[in-house]
Amino acid sequence: MSTIVSVDTRDIRFPTSLELDGSDAMNPDPDYSAAYVTIRTDAADGHSGHAFVFTIGRGNDVQVAAIEALREHVRGLDVEAALADMGATWRLLTHDSQLRWLGPEKGVMHMAIGAVVNALWDLKAKRAGLPLWQLLASLTPEELVSLVDFRYLSDAITPDEALELFRAAEPGRADRTAELLATGYPAYTTTPGWLGYSDEKLDRLCREAVADGFPQIKLKVGANLADDVRRLGIARAAVGPDYPIAIDANQRWDVGPAIEWINALAEFDPAWVEEPTSPDDVLGHAAIARGIAPIRVATGEHVQNRIVFKQLLQAGGMDVMQIDATRVGGVNENIANLLLAAKFGVPVCPHAGGVGLCEAVQHLSMFDYVALSGTMEGRMIEFVDHLHEHFVTPVVIERGRYVTPTAPGAGTEMLAASVDDYTWRGRHRAVPV
Amino acid sequence: MSTIVSVDTRDIRFPTSLELDGSDAMNPDPDYSAAYVTIRTDAADGHSGHAFVFTIGRGNDVQVAAIEALREHVRGLDVEAALADMGATWRLLTHDSQLRWLGPEKGVMHMAIGAVVNALWDLKAKRAGLPLWQLLASLTPEELVSLVDFRYLSDAITPDEALELFRAAEPGRADRTAELLATGYPAYTTTPGWLGYSDEKLDRLCREAVADGFPQIKLKVGANLADDVRRLGIARAAVGPDYPIAIDANQRWDVGPAIEWINALAEFDPAWVEEPTSPDDVLGHAAIARGIAPIRVATGEHVQNRIVFKQLLQAGGMDVMQIDATRVGGVNENIANLLLAAKFGVPVCPHAGGVGLCEAVQHLSMFDYVALSGTMEGRMIEFVDHLHEHFVTPVVIERGRYVTPTAPGAGTEMLAASVDDYTWRGRHRAVPV
Repeated sequence: MSTIVSVDTRDIRFPTSLELDGSDAMNPDPDYSAAYVTIRTDAADGHSGHAFVFTIGRGNDVQVAAIEALREHVRGLDVEAALADMGATWRLLTHDSQLRWLGPEKGVMHMAIGAVVNALWDLKAKRAGLPLWQLLASLTPEELVSLVDFRYLSDAITPDEALELFRAAEPGRADRTAELLATGYPAYTTTPGWLGYSDEKLDRLCREAVADGFPQIKLKVGANLADDVRRLGIARAAVGPDYPIAIDANQRWDVGPAIEWINALAEFDPAWVEEPTSPDDVLGHAAIARGIAPIRVATGEHVQNRIVFKQLLQAGGMDVMQIDATRVGGVNENIANLLLAAKFGVPVCPHAGGVGLCEAVQHLSMFDYVALSGTMEGRMIEFVDHLHEHFVTPVVIERGRYVTPTAPGAGTEMLAASVDDYTWRGRHRAVPV
Repeated sequence: MSTIVSVDTRDIRFPTSLELDGSDAMNPDPDYSAAYVTIRTDAADGHSGHAFVFTIGRGNDVQVAAIEALREHVRGLDVEAALADMGATWRLLTHDSQLRWLGPEKGVMHMAIGAVVNALWDLKAKRAGLPLWQLLASLTPEELVSLVDFRYLSDAITPDEALELFRAAEPGRADRTAELLATGYPAYTTTPGWLGYSDEKLDRLCREAVADGFPQIKLKVGANLADDVRRLGIARAAVGPDYPIAIDANQRWDVGPAIEWINALAEFDPAWVEEPTSPDDVLGHAAIARGIAPIRVATGEHVQNRIVFKQLLQAGGMDVMQIDATRVGGVNENIANLLLAAKFGVPVCPHAGGVGLCEAVQHLSMFDYVALSGTMEGRMIEFVDHLHEHFVTPVVIERGRYVTPTAPGAGTEMLAASVDDYTWRGRHRAVPV
């Protein structure tokens, strides 16, 4: 038996606001940050688990404090027992009644639980010598169902229904694993579309995205309609009439204005419109979906938990599910989200970018392909070419696809030097040359 | 001009778990706590503003950290300007894009904003020499509308509609103020109903509640159906056939089981069923409401913001709105919630108890009576006789009614001695004799 001996946190912040990378209608000057956690054991293998919550600057210290509030739940745990029943471990953290009061199951405290859960999955995958997607895809349907907390979900999906979905996908697992390793997983790029970029830069980056083989680009919208029309015109001219361009409003609108604004952009044939309004507004998303059909509504990066995802599907408010690796309660809750998407027949196109979100979330899509949905049709993972150099196993993109990772772990470990260099000490370090 | 010179926080915890006060189906052993904030100025009047977030123990330190993350937004503000336009001050805190990422508008970060906003209201009321309810009820309809952020609400209520609601209630303000000062506001009591109490204690406390003049009691349910049937039988026998008994499940059930369980208790004629499922599940609440009619659904103490309240009303999932003084973004957002209730014609019966929630929320109901809904019909404020002795202006209950407070302020200032005695230093102090 070995024991978890430490849970260490770091407040890591990159000075991205200096370049306006990541600027959108709601977030004009983000400093991409990570509340980073490292879990160590006394096992002879020397493996450690790493994960983080992505934030955009101020408040990253609050997120760190929330992870630290979980330390006493994790330190001292029997490593093998905790990793052998990750469903129980998830419940141990999520069902602490005193901590639950701070949500429940939402916001800072819930994301902290997600980080600890994800660090344990990183540790488990390293100990298994497998990339996380492959570890998950090696579990039996019964083991996978045991990972999910079906509380508040049973009116939409039951454990028995989940078991059937996993069992139905069992036959082709080996073939799909081979295909995934051979061809990777489709990506789309948001690199051209930040609001802070000039028209010339937009045009150039759109052309580069097509040339690089990406099957879709995404543009930020919602700050100014005339600007959106102009920028979409530039993008459409750059990529041609049939190439998919998604748009992302980052929660900018109320319901009525969303419908008007989106319909005013319909001539540019958007592949989807993302976060048209508050991520909390299930009924608002449904009203917008009705008001802009056949344009599709995508959302999820700020959806707080499986309960809101459930309702977005029940209400017809989400045509594309955009899970995020660090917004909900970690891998376990995202498996619940993937199950909901499979049940309702909605494609999953994860949110990524930020700090390490690409590295983390690719494992979930790849697991979904091998062991649940069984298809990449209409699926792709967001990609932003940014900050990958700080990770031990950065994502690799070739011809617009994520190259399937084979290194053991969840992809969420940062380089020790980056952790040290970008640890927040009240101000940004000088921008590295 | 005077300036805000300090924003100080304290982690205050009462060892309530030792007595099982506050035990329910989801919260077996709460330690009632407060992340407490004090805002001081350099004005000659010497007034300070005080408020808090109520939590139930572990994680109170995280809540304190979130309040501290707001310090740099508040310290140095021109006091008169900040208090003169509290709508702008609310937006200053809520629309910080980097902090907003941690919610948005939910959980630890949003409650922290609520505490700071409420402390500023306490300060403003003290400077005006008025209790908060009366200060609010002295504002013009235009001033009241300016306090509310209608973002994400305009599909349910517009600023013009809000103005009409306030204007319609203007004529009777003076009469209702006089009546409120003369008669107070109805209370109901949860004191008999905690799950941890013996049958004998339940019976005794039910009879005492009736004798004390309370117009309603509430019992916790949801841990065990046979126990609920037995306990409701004891309560019904104690209070007689026509006396209202509300029940509170504290989010214990999924949708289907909620409908079955509640209908199994229908013979006891519950006045309402509170929090039957996750507070995030708007559609679930609506399904439950349909499945248990005519029994009413009450919820709100964990509803994260105005956007979820809006949807609960739109979907028909909430027959009674239970606002909480410290769950949402403070007084401003609760005025939005009161407006939504008025628009949809739903009574507001606030959640209280905990630490100082009675002291705080009474002002909102009393303001609502004078300046918005204009009625106490079907309205009452929860009351639990617990921890009031730690407040400078504790609530006073007479014959089952809140005595209308007349002391200046928002009721949210704790005694300095209590703050010192119960500041958390890693363990509970010895229980006071």
